[in-house]
Amino acid sequence: MSLAKRRGFVFQSSEIYGGLNGCWDYGPLGVELLNNVKNEWWKTMTYREDVEGIDASILMHPRVWEASGHVENFTDPMIDCKQCKARFRLDVLGDSYADKKKDKAIQELKENLKNDERLLQKIDDKLNNPGDENPFTLLLEDSEISKLLLAQLNCPQCGNKGTFTDARKFNLMFKTFIGPVEDTGSVVYLRPETAQGIFVNFLNVQGASRQKLPFGIAQIGKAFRNEINTKNFLFRTREFEQMEMQFFVNPNNDKEWYNYWKSERMDWYKRMGMTEKKLRYHDHPADKLAHYAKEAVDIEYEFPFGWGEIEGIHNRTDYDLSRHEEFSGKSLKYFDEQTKEKLIPFIIETSAGASRSFMAFLIDAYYEEEVKGEVRSVLKFHPRLAPTKAAIFPLVNKDGMPEIARKIETDLRKSFRVFYDDKGAVGRRYRRQDEAGTPYCITVDTQTLEDQTVTVRERDTMEQERVGIDKLAGYLLNKIQSA
Amino acid sequence: MSLAKRRGFVFQSSEIYGGLNGCWDYGPLGVELLNNVKNEWWKTMTYREDVEGIDASILMHPRVWEASGHVENFTDPMIDCKQCKARFRLDVLGDSYADKKKDKAIQELKENLKNDERLLQKIDDKLNNPGDENPFTLLLEDSEISKLLLAQLNCPQCGNKGTFTDARKFNLMFKTFIGPVEDTGSVVYLRPETAQGIFVNFLNVQGASRQKLPFGIAQIGKAFRNEINTKNFLFRTREFEQMEMQFFVNPNNDKEWYNYWKSERMDWYKRMGMTEKKLRYHDHPADKLAHYAKEAVDIEYEFPFGWGEIEGIHNRTDYDLSRHEEFSGKSLKYFDEQTKEKLIPFIIETSAGASRSFMAFLIDAYYEEEVKGEVRSVLKFHPRLAPTKAAIFPLVNKDGMPEIARKIETDLRKSFRVFYDDKGAVGRRYRRQDEAGTPYCITVDTQTLEDQTVTVRERDTMEQERVGIDKLAGYLLNKIQSA
Repeated sequence: MSLAKRRGFVFQSSEIYGGLNGCWDYGPLGVELLNNVKNEWWKTMTYREDVEGIDASILMHPRVWEASGHVENFTDPMIDCKQCKARFRLDVLGDSYADKKKDKAIQELKENLKNDERLLQKIDDKLNNPGDENPFTLLLEDSEISKLLLAQLNCPQCGNKGTFTDARKFNLMFKTFIGPVEDTGSVVYLRPETAQGIFVNFLNVQGASRQKLPFGIAQIGKAFRNEINTKNFLFRTREFEQMEMQFFVNPNNDKEWYNYWKSERMDWYKRMGMTEKKLRYHDHPADKLAHYAKEAVDIEYEFPFGWGEIEGIHNRTDYDLSRHEEFSGKSLKYFDEQTKEKLIPFIIETSAGASRSFMAFLIDAYYEEEVKGEVRSVLKFHPRLAPTKAAIFPLVNKDGMPEIARKIETDLRKSFRVFYDDKGAVGRRYRRQDEAGTPYCITVDTQTLEDQTVTVRERDTMEQERVGIDKLAGYLLNKIQSA
Repeated sequence: MSLAKRRGFVFQSSEIYGGLNGCWDYGPLGVELLNNVKNEWWKTMTYREDVEGIDASILMHPRVWEASGHVENFTDPMIDCKQCKARFRLDVLGDSYADKKKDKAIQELKENLKNDERLLQKIDDKLNNPGDENPFTLLLEDSEISKLLLAQLNCPQCGNKGTFTDARKFNLMFKTFIGPVEDTGSVVYLRPETAQGIFVNFLNVQGASRQKLPFGIAQIGKAFRNEINTKNFLFRTREFEQMEMQFFVNPNNDKEWYNYWKSERMDWYKRMGMTEKKLRYHDHPADKLAHYAKEAVDIEYEFPFGWGEIEGIHNRTDYDLSRHEEFSGKSLKYFDEQTKEKLIPFIIETSAGASRSFMAFLIDAYYEEEVKGEVRSVLKFHPRLAPTKAAIFPLVNKDGMPEIARKIETDLRKSFRVFYDDKGAVGRRYRRQDEAGTPYCITVDTQTLEDQTVTVRERDTMEQERVGIDKLAGYLLNKIQSA
């Protein structure tokens, strides 16, 4: 995070005003890395015959979020302390107690319930839950048990006991009002995911592009979630960017396409240079699937804080289009000319976080290496992701070297983002570019004056090669494209 | 608009739910055109030594909008009918009355005021106002005159007279609540412009990039305005995209850089193929300048509905950084190493609408031409802006032509967005691509089988040239880059 700020990858949003929790700004190097991640994804996903792109608006008709289930279900259980007015998400409240305190509360609860075998059994079931959820949170989230348990706990803020309200649902969508009147009839939401913009445009896109099943619609865009607990830098934020593709298939082929995209998407991260052993699949067990999903898998990256999802691949079945049919009253059926059947396609979704991928690529690229007794910090980005493609150094600021170097700079700028640096020792200039992840450094030296060649130093191997100035642009282009 | 929807450039947002006023979705061809406009702008504006890019968040600290003046001043005067509860923007209310009705109301007003020379003079001044504003609206917006005049007007909705409330300010920022509590302390706004994200990051970017004055910071991103009256398709919408660059200069050089950017930005539209005679400058007269501006000019395009601004260039002086210094309590001064002075730079702003430019490029490209007695619709996009760069047609679906055509397609897809079409007569396939604005159509024919050449047909001239398959990618790349 220190390098990220110092070198201009990521700043806190509105930093001079103390920041805005869960929002971040991408600086000069950050915006290039982010754009390169998005561009590579876009080219991979839409420069193919069977996928079209769109860019839907962030504000959508509010009925969209009723159909999607977000108005009803996209909630976190929250609780207030009646005494001090502090507000907690239930799982966070649970986590805030020491294990000893939790054990004591459960013990007390069981004693109070010693004649109620049904509830005791329920408590034991939750405590022995084999899944990822914290058993104490499961107890807090159960409507019967919650009240009894909460009565035995102190508010972590004011310390009073028995002051909690009942838990209630807190919707994570940001809402606003459209038009001149602020009332319930004018509420609209900031989209919490980009996917719905694709679903509601299914027939528009199919009609305009004349695509036939199977085909996909891809989109990159911002989404917003009013997370109560933001954490881990760019991992859980309130404003973030998604790269989503919804692939519409005949229900008969869903399994085949699910497997295809599961494998394609993992390959993409590897091709873009992410360390293989820091990537893994996490298949969702059948009893943990979201209500709309038939099958689901996460692609996880091993962050410094542990494994975290960077992309999900889901078989969403016909849930989304059926719901929008029901709520809009418009037919969203597809007519299959071959089989002469009208059907609602199944959807295989690939949902990647642009912001999370950005963070994974940034962290994954970072190395500290010992070179000749000194530590060098280097960002080993894939050349296509690197914010700056090449740096140009005149060895000294005289003898015509700056003029040649400037000419090379001007020439390369037509194709690439490049950086010109004539300050300080060349070793220092290399180190600055290593830290920015620039894959190629070009030095104009005395030999250049004689034979019109320059040295090209490769960031990772630190090896140098002499290349003719006239061949330089083609040499770099080829290196970058074939990497 | 009909072509825009049919060919997949722009759809209404949430169309299956009846749409959301002032919001639009970009379809498969639209998103490519929009991305190309944004990419060309980004390359032109940031692939230079003196401009850095950023991508700031849409949600910002609410104090930002106090400092910028938006909380207080970014308002439209609104009025309600107490009887039927209808709400009107004052200028729209004024426009809704026939001229006769307006004349009668003014006549009546003057008679009632016949002993008040001061007010009569004020009324005459407003009626003789030489500017762009509607004189009737000016009367309605004057706090003294407004009440008297409104008392003589009927509500356009319910027809009752004397039922209007006083006018009050309606803020055009969308507001929402961040965090779990919905109260005034948690209000944040969707940014109504991207510029402020640049101002508050001035020192962060300067520090990370080590830029010295003069230098700029560029950003592309969404902005939101709760317009009461959306109109003219993509021209006035509630959600839109901006391409803004703020250039920080020593106050001594402001005029020079203002002129530089005024000319650079006009040139850009021309270089990107926009019809010269449909572009003009509109200089803001000194008495009509925004409170922060020393000088301002619009670049206007002649839309079918009239001349409209697509970009503004403004000398914003030191207003923005001074205000953020004042409101944040943080120094935003720049230390000039040469003159050893600490100063607040002046800002020359170039503020372009990505959505408006998109619409201007789309409309400007549209031609209906008579070719051999038939009308052809063609979109003459600059090749770098065209959504699809090339289409590949096998002349017939046999004799090995499809195989060769598919190989060409696969090869070109590495660099370009291309389209493969083997359906119907070639003339029909050309017309479809003309309508999509594809600059090059490649046909694989019988001669191809003999000599490994294809025809490349240029969209605007409709001339055909034979090119060797092995040279095709380079040929197209060169055409596109040198266009």
